[in-house]
Formats: sequence, C-alpha cells, structure tokens
Amino acid sequence: MRNHAEELRALQDTLYFIGGKWRLPVINAICNGHRRFREIERSIPGITTRMLSKELKEMEMNNLVTRTVYADTPVLVEYAPTAYCRSFGTIIQEMIRWGRQHRKTILKGRADKP
Amino acid sequence: MRNHAEELRALQDTLYFIGGKWRLPVINAICNGHRRFREIERSIPGITTRMLSKELKEMEMNNLVTRTVYADTPVLVEYAPTAYCRSFGTIIQEMIRWGRQHRKTILKGRADKP
Repeated sequence: MRNHAEELRALQDTLYFIGGKWRLPVINAICNGHRRFREIERSIPGITTRMLSKELKEMEMNNLVTRTVYADTPVLVEYAPTAYCRSFGTIIQEMIRWGRQHRKTILKGRADKP
Repeated sequence: MRNHAEELRALQDTLYFIGGKWRLPVINAICNGHRRFREIERSIPGITTRMLSKELKEMEMNNLVTRTVYADTPVLVEYAPTAYCRSFGTIIQEMIRWGRQHRKTILKGRADKP
C-alpha cells in the first residue's frame, strides 16, 4: 500500500524547496549554461535584480550553485550548477512538457469556440 | 538548438498554474481517491477549510475536478479528478522522488557531522 502521509511529506518538502516562482527558472538558466549575473538576469524576463540576487544567495547557501570570483578588472563573478542543481532536471523537463501541452489545449479550446 | 525562451515560457506557465503550496497536494489527494471535502481536508495536514474551499472552487473552474452533488440527506458532495488533473501525475511523482532523495541527503549530512 502507498503511504499517503510519507508521499505528501516528500511532495511538500520539494514544493517548499522550490518555493516561489523564480527558483526553477533560475536553476534552469544556470543549468542551460548562463554563468554571469547579467546573463542569467537577461535570460529571465520579469525577474528583478533584487530578486535574482536574493535567489542566488539562497541557492549558494543551499548548495545549488557555486560562486567563483575571478580577481580580474573588473571583477568577474561566475555561477555554476552543482549536481544538486541538476537533480531538478527531470522535474523541470516534465514541467516544460506539461506547459507546452497546456498551451496547446488552451489554444485548441479557443479555436473550437464559434 | 533548444529554444530557451519557449522552454522558459512553458515552465513558467506550469509554475503559474500550480501556483501556491496547496494545489499539488490537493490534486494528489484527489488522484489518490479522496472524494469528500472532509476526507481531502484530513489527508492534508495544515490546510485550512477556507484554503481548501478556495482551491476546490478554482480547480473546478479550471476543469481539474468535477463536483457532483447527490441529493441525499445530508447532501453528499463528491469531487473527482479529470484527465487534466491526472496529467500532473508525472510531475507529482518526480517531486515525491526528489523530496525523498533530499530527505536522505539531509539526514546523511547530519549523520556525517561530528
């Protein structure tokens, strides 16, 4: 028998960890090869500098990204995904798949109406 | 080449649709066979009557559940998942898997510390 309480706890742990609308888009951007702050920022329309900064700090604390500072002029900062960050790959891919299907359904629904 | 903007849009559509911390737990409860309001409520610790009521209304409007009223005494109301509701199955399963793994990692991390 499935243990509903244990499943629910695992699901809620994940939802809590993902928390908010920016975490997964930022993880996706970094896993897709965006490395610098401005690069990541530009790749996610609507995110503010403040929100991205907050996300990246939390993600560094949670071992989702590593932050490397190159003592260049000007100083170069690069973010890289950890294995932990990449562990969201399947969830993100499933969400992309769902979102595409949802868009098709919505557009079809509109087309079906007289 | 992957279209980052299109992927991001699909991901954000899904995140928007899932919106908030209760939608997926409620979907999961209904897909797991909970049918009556009090059943669903009891299966999700922490959810308030008000929040569940709001979720179910929105889910009915969004074609995620059907609501059937049986003219009994007292009136019996049952919620059932639509195919659309079940389309979240893979995302939910992946999130449960991730949450379990995360818990193991956290517990292991604690055990490793002196």
